[in-house]
Amino acid sequence: MNEAVEKVAIIGGTGPQGKGLALRLALAGVSVVLGSRDATKAQDAATEMTALLAEKGTTADITGMSMEDATKAASELVILSVPYAGHDATLTTLAPLLINKVLVDIVVPLAPGNPKAVEMPKEGSVTEAAQALLGDSVPVVGALHNVSAITLNDLSRTINCDILVCGNDLAAKKKVMALIELMGTKAYNAGLAESARCIEALTPILIRLNISKDVPFSHAGVRICPPDAH
Amino acid sequence: MNEAVEKVAIIGGTGPQGKGLALRLALAGVSVVLGSRDATKAQDAATEMTALLAEKGTTADITGMSMEDATKAASELVILSVPYAGHDATLTTLAPLLINKVLVDIVVPLAPGNPKAVEMPKEGSVTEAAQALLGDSVPVVGALHNVSAITLNDLSRTINCDILVCGNDLAAKKKVMALIELMGTKAYNAGLAESARCIEALTPILIRLNISKDVPFSHAGVRICPPDAH
Repeated sequence: MNEAVEKVAIIGGTGPQGKGLALRLALAGVSVVLGSRDATKAQDAATEMTALLAEKGTTADITGMSMEDATKAASELVILSVPYAGHDATLTTLAPLLINKVLVDIVVPLAPGNPKAVEMPKEGSVTEAAQALLGDSVPVVGALHNVSAITLNDLSRTINCDILVCGNDLAAKKKVMALIELMGTKAYNAGLAESARCIEALTPILIRLNISKDVPFSHAGVRICPPDAH
Repeated sequence: MNEAVEKVAIIGGTGPQGKGLALRLALAGVSVVLGSRDATKAQDAATEMTALLAEKGTTADITGMSMEDATKAASELVILSVPYAGHDATLTTLAPLLINKVLVDIVVPLAPGNPKAVEMPKEGSVTEAAQALLGDSVPVVGALHNVSAITLNDLSRTINCDILVCGNDLAAKKKVMALIELMGTKAYNAGLAESARCIEALTPILIRLNISKDVPFSHAGVRICPPDAH
């Protein structure tokens, strides 16, 4: 195991996306600490997931605690997986604890009441807003916006999408890409934080396809294809 | 052949993207008229492409004329494939001729001197800017932003990407999607014109991957994947 990913925190780790990521990472041998506003809820979720993975023969290291304690417990990578409405307030609370860490922002600013559209913050994207809020000393990496929570939680499925990773700090991006690839999918460096304007906005397009009667499947993912790929 | 796609105009049809589209459409049995500021150049390109397709045993219907005459000659669909720098001026010239037509805008606003970034117009995307310029009576459909010109021109290859189609007029989008699928690839309705903020911005991300030494292929495309796709 890469030392940089020794213990990963997932803030909002009791939501569907956070839980799914926790399962996939723990399955890959990563130590995971779930952070929630309600530490007991995080502990309960951790116990439940540990039992689920034990049934599958995996000894998982998943613990649960408050958001603050989970952030402190992270070796370096802190994944933020909260609803957009709580994004800025959560980050403001955690900011002093994120010194010397890397924030992995997976939040998509879906429009209130309309999951087929985004409402971007004035900074251009959530990733850019997080970077502005935290200042340049804490690297922010945008990633994992487009993967379906249902797919993540269904361990009988492989992850049907590549992960586009963006941010202004290359070293931080490489650590996040290495973490993602432990889950058995491919991560691509999609450029600077401003690429999040595209990547975050892909999610409502996929949600639209999932809802559409014209598309014969749900839980669509996006893949980067080489020439002649079918 | 669908009557709506009887004769398609490609404005900027002598550039690499326009030529590639002309070849693929003509190969699919669509009549194509290339429009260029220099009508002679358009005629020469049409002659050259017709000969190329004849070598492959295809009787193609490709003609060339001025941008204005090509727009007038189109049954309905007019594809705009000019460099971004000329986008607004070209559309302003053609606007009166686009009444009762559908504009298919494939232009990506790459940042000057930096193909790994976009510089979006103030309307949010080129598709939205075109719709604002033409007014609501002329439907604008954004499409074909992410397909490599080199792939389009290399007829030994299949098109290695799905096409995300957006715009505010559903009937117009459906006509464009039907045209695209004649080229042997899949088109998806990606929502309203504002989805172009995402779709146009995907192109520089793909260009970045194509340039990157870390990605073992060029001419990357994007595909929508069902669950369990590998």
